[in-house]
Amino acid sequence: MSGKVVALSGGVGGAKLALGLSKILAPEDLTIIANTGDDFEHLGLHISPDIDTLIYTLADMANPEQGWGIRNETWNFMAGLKAAGGETWFQLGDKDLVTHVLRTKALREGTSLTEITRDLCARYGARHKILPMSDDPVRTRVKTNEGPLEFQHYFVRERCLPEISGIEFTGMDTARLNPAIETAITDPDLSAIVICPSNPFVSVDPILKTGNMRALIKASGAPVIAVSPIVGGQALKGPAAKMMRELGLPTNVNGIADHYEGLIDALIIDQRDHACMQELQSRPFRTFATNTIMACLEDKVALATDTLALITNF
Amino acid sequence: MSGKVVALSGGVGGAKLALGLSKILAPEDLTIIANTGDDFEHLGLHISPDIDTLIYTLADMANPEQGWGIRNETWNFMAGLKAAGGETWFQLGDKDLVTHVLRTKALREGTSLTEITRDLCARYGARHKILPMSDDPVRTRVKTNEGPLEFQHYFVRERCLPEISGIEFTGMDTARLNPAIETAITDPDLSAIVICPSNPFVSVDPILKTGNMRALIKASGAPVIAVSPIVGGQALKGPAAKMMRELGLPTNVNGIADHYEGLIDALIIDQRDHACMQELQSRPFRTFATNTIMACLEDKVALATDTLALITNF
Repeated sequence: MSGKVVALSGGVGGAKLALGLSKILAPEDLTIIANTGDDFEHLGLHISPDIDTLIYTLADMANPEQGWGIRNETWNFMAGLKAAGGETWFQLGDKDLVTHVLRTKALREGTSLTEITRDLCARYGARHKILPMSDDPVRTRVKTNEGPLEFQHYFVRERCLPEISGIEFTGMDTARLNPAIETAITDPDLSAIVICPSNPFVSVDPILKTGNMRALIKASGAPVIAVSPIVGGQALKGPAAKMMRELGLPTNVNGIADHYEGLIDALIIDQRDHACMQELQSRPFRTFATNTIMACLEDKVALATDTLALITNF
Repeated sequence: MSGKVVALSGGVGGAKLALGLSKILAPEDLTIIANTGDDFEHLGLHISPDIDTLIYTLADMANPEQGWGIRNETWNFMAGLKAAGGETWFQLGDKDLVTHVLRTKALREGTSLTEITRDLCARYGARHKILPMSDDPVRTRVKTNEGPLEFQHYFVRERCLPEISGIEFTGMDTARLNPAIETAITDPDLSAIVICPSNPFVSVDPILKTGNMRALIKASGAPVIAVSPIVGGQALKGPAAKMMRELGLPTNVNGIADHYEGLIDALIIDQRDHACMQELQSRPFRTFATNTIMACLEDKVALATDTLALITNF
């Protein structure tokens, strides 16, 4: 494989494939675009959950069991916060706090999210480029049977229990696409755009809806390859399947295919969904089946290899 | 003893006597005025070292060995900060960070330092009133042979090594005295004003120089009793003696007497300085000698008791 790759990613699931890609591609050949719709301000700190997961994963600092947070993390700040009667629904590890404190300080001083992300990558040793989708605030809110909720309130505090009826991205009307993303996508050496197996509705959609992102992807001419986050009718992690059910969408790879049709050139589904292959053949993109469950580093590299191997098909 | 007491305090040394006073006086009878000249912004967090030491001490959370910080503190944030190449000269414990994060958030939301101090006292269980000298920023800077330094840079980062030639309080011209202090000092039940054994130049002076503080003290008519922070020509803690030497002042209780003459009605010196008693008799205030070294809680309560016993002399 030669050429550059742009990957669109949310948090844990997407970061697994991003890590696989980073093991194959040189730092200058991979740009990972991170969802910032999950960002929020908590205890006065600016928290970017998906960027953090990507940095920690690529810097080999991530907690391998949970996929988010830092390995060998400690929770003494949280214990102190609890003793002080503070809000404890969002877990802030003692080491993880360093990231939030440094980012918040930099943002208040006028540094852009892109710059502080680059700085954090350098500090922690994540060598591949991670770009926030925008330096402007976009905030995902889910409409639920208990009223609208900020995404982290829905996702973490309410543990995805409320039934959702819609998703909105406040700030999206005015948010400008990160200019570095345009540079990456219009690079003549671009050989593929990979949509990682992240939640299509709350992780990938915010990226696609930012500025002229969709038009840029179209105009690039590069093959767009999505990896389904749904395996056997279930999301491997997170609320994607539950959301699809509540939004009245088929909770299987067809739902994913419906969602990405018109944008993608290839869909990678899990080999466990091989029975869906024939049905998907009528779609205006090619479908491939492989193992998409990334339990270990070898799985991540294997899926990344399978994904990049498709480029020669286009 | 009946009536109310106002105590002026800096950090560790002053907090020891404040704790002693708090064991004798009911919460409604003791108001502790804290120096905020040492406050600074570090890593985007607003840190009030003297207020924190007072809260932790009065809430029985303080580290008894070092006098500042929290007992059984852990340092995993600092380890993470060091790994991330951050500034590590100022120690921020994992539990201590809770205070800075909550305060910074509240201040950014427009809460006054007085209100957030009251809130923190309630959260941690410090029952006696702690009042910042002002809700406006005053910042102590020392002029040194290496140029001007913010106080914490001088005190912590440079470990008081540079030679000083002067002290200034930026913001003092416009800082308003905390209105709650005027209420406390004009209270008809006020029976004494105690100047704790804190550094006269960088802990007590900022309080005395704020707004009309000195005039209010004078007008109150209440006896003003200072406890010398110098014992046997040495400061028990901190750079007071070194500062006095570099400023060309006598580094003994006479230097303290010079400094407070005209303001105080009584000076408590340590029994180890009993030889100075006769010399001090010409001063326009009375001098008493007792044990001022507060190694344990009993010492603190004893010195507080000795201090309050003087009230009947006036």
